[in-house]
Amino acid sequence: MFELVFLGTSASAPSVHRGLSSAMVLYKEYRFLIDCGEGTQRQLLRSGLGFRRLDRILLTHGHLDHILGLAGIASTFGRWEANERIEIWGGRWALDRVEMLLEVVFGPEQRPLEIELYDVQAGILMEDESFRLSAFPVSHRGPGCFGYLFEEKSRRPFLADQADALGVPRGPERAQLVRGQAITLADGTLIRPEQVLGPELPGARLVFVGDAGKTDNLHQVAQGADALVIEATYLHRDIDMARQFGHLTARQSAELARDAGVSALILTHLSRRYYERDVLAEAQEVFANTFVARDLDMFQIARSGQVQRTRSSGQESEEG
Amino acid sequence: MFELVFLGTSASAPSVHRGLSSAMVLYKEYRFLIDCGEGTQRQLLRSGLGFRRLDRILLTHGHLDHILGLAGIASTFGRWEANERIEIWGGRWALDRVEMLLEVVFGPEQRPLEIELYDVQAGILMEDESFRLSAFPVSHRGPGCFGYLFEEKSRRPFLADQADALGVPRGPERAQLVRGQAITLADGTLIRPEQVLGPELPGARLVFVGDAGKTDNLHQVAQGADALVIEATYLHRDIDMARQFGHLTARQSAELARDAGVSALILTHLSRRYYERDVLAEAQEVFANTFVARDLDMFQIARSGQVQRTRSSGQESEEG
Repeated sequence: MFELVFLGTSASAPSVHRGLSSAMVLYKEYRFLIDCGEGTQRQLLRSGLGFRRLDRILLTHGHLDHILGLAGIASTFGRWEANERIEIWGGRWALDRVEMLLEVVFGPEQRPLEIELYDVQAGILMEDESFRLSAFPVSHRGPGCFGYLFEEKSRRPFLADQADALGVPRGPERAQLVRGQAITLADGTLIRPEQVLGPELPGARLVFVGDAGKTDNLHQVAQGADALVIEATYLHRDIDMARQFGHLTARQSAELARDAGVSALILTHLSRRYYERDVLAEAQEVFANTFVARDLDMFQIARSGQVQRTRSSGQESEEG
Repeated sequence: MFELVFLGTSASAPSVHRGLSSAMVLYKEYRFLIDCGEGTQRQLLRSGLGFRRLDRILLTHGHLDHILGLAGIASTFGRWEANERIEIWGGRWALDRVEMLLEVVFGPEQRPLEIELYDVQAGILMEDESFRLSAFPVSHRGPGCFGYLFEEKSRRPFLADQADALGVPRGPERAQLVRGQAITLADGTLIRPEQVLGPELPGARLVFVGDAGKTDNLHQVAQGADALVIEATYLHRDIDMARQFGHLTARQSAELARDAGVSALILTHLSRRYYERDVLAEAQEVFANTFVARDLDMFQIARSGQVQRTRSSGQESEEG
């Protein structure tokens, strides 16, 4: 199961209720900060997440409203916090801009913390026995825009009752079976993994897209996802402006959710020019299970489409 | 009368309740933003001040917690707002850093708004018939640190009753007298300004100091001020750390207020490591009329020491 916390949900400029783009995905011991608009360090404090274990930042692209907060985080980490190393992942153009920003922060001197910039290419970025993180290309203004796919690997659950019935003792033998190795009992009986493992269960899939100008290249990656996070900068009545600036309307994002058969759609990156309720209504006409994220909202995303908002900032927002 | 709104009152890094350094001084049609830490554009929106007529930014020094917000403001003004020109005033070192930051924002291309950087020297920066803004040197880490003095010029009030008694008609003659010119009435009587102007009234004086490592060079400018705004980054029990980083303790700032005979002391730039009430208590032991500013607090500063907090954010803050 993934946890997802929105730190900033405004497009381009902040509003009273919405900060600039940033979100965090939590899984086991991992924390991935996705984008880092101005004010993110304060939102991390307000959210209760703080700075602990924050060592990986994924950038969807290099526009200022998604990266300026890196300066403050780098400054604070360099002076006050225990974090000694950060990885920043992004397209080449975004990283070049981040490097300029870090030069403002640290100047030419030795940096007080290690900052590694990783040039993202589409494909797997990291994986362990139960988890995989991949990047996929997204079309927005400029080169090197990426979305991120968070996947639990599918697994076959261990059937303890079955193992008991077969006389498998509790202990390391069971771990061996889970790893797919056969064992031999004290009485000489061979037990094969298939005998004590249930049918394969797919893991949770979370697809995170930042700013995007079109959706046709996103259907494949979004197919059957438990949750799709994507921008909704415009309402469809302003489709011409959306096209001009390489953004999507709420309706377009909802059509992607519907056509790709995702379980839940979570919209973010709202413009100050709209009411939140209008964005939600436009999307729900096309795809019912839509959420519009607010700052500090928390979601849980589990397999089989179990997606729920577990914390809502509850702020009544009269603006986008 | 000056109005003063605090936008961010935290030192170095933000806290849940305090953003990074910024304040605005309002006088007649002028708006002066003093410092611009990360998140200032959002605080401007939250305060209700917005971006209208925001065209002059004064920097006390070039440390990151006082300037990083310029990137977001410049970006937002460049894309969305009507502001076409900003002046940024500061010491040379601060301006060099700001220039690097603006290069990250705008790249090498033509800037969508005019940004003028003015290299501050001690002395008068601007004045009109009723107002004067000056800069004075402040000792903090690094070169080119300045404080700012906002002064209403002293004036002699027009005594309307006196003028009526002397038979001065209502009209342009009165304006002439206010400007210091004698007039001749229809019956040939000469009226001199002294006859209808009261004794000189000093205007309001607001002294704004940012970060400072010592106070001995501030006594003269602070002498008799209506309000002194100054940092209180440390409590006196941590005087060694204060010295090491070029900061003041609450007690030191209060001693300056007392010795310079100011009417009101307003402390800002608080560290996360203290409770606000302890900072206030330490200062009030030395100087009773002390306020500790919170984000979005508003003050009115009028002549004769009439200083009041007219809006308090009211947030109960369990932290510094």
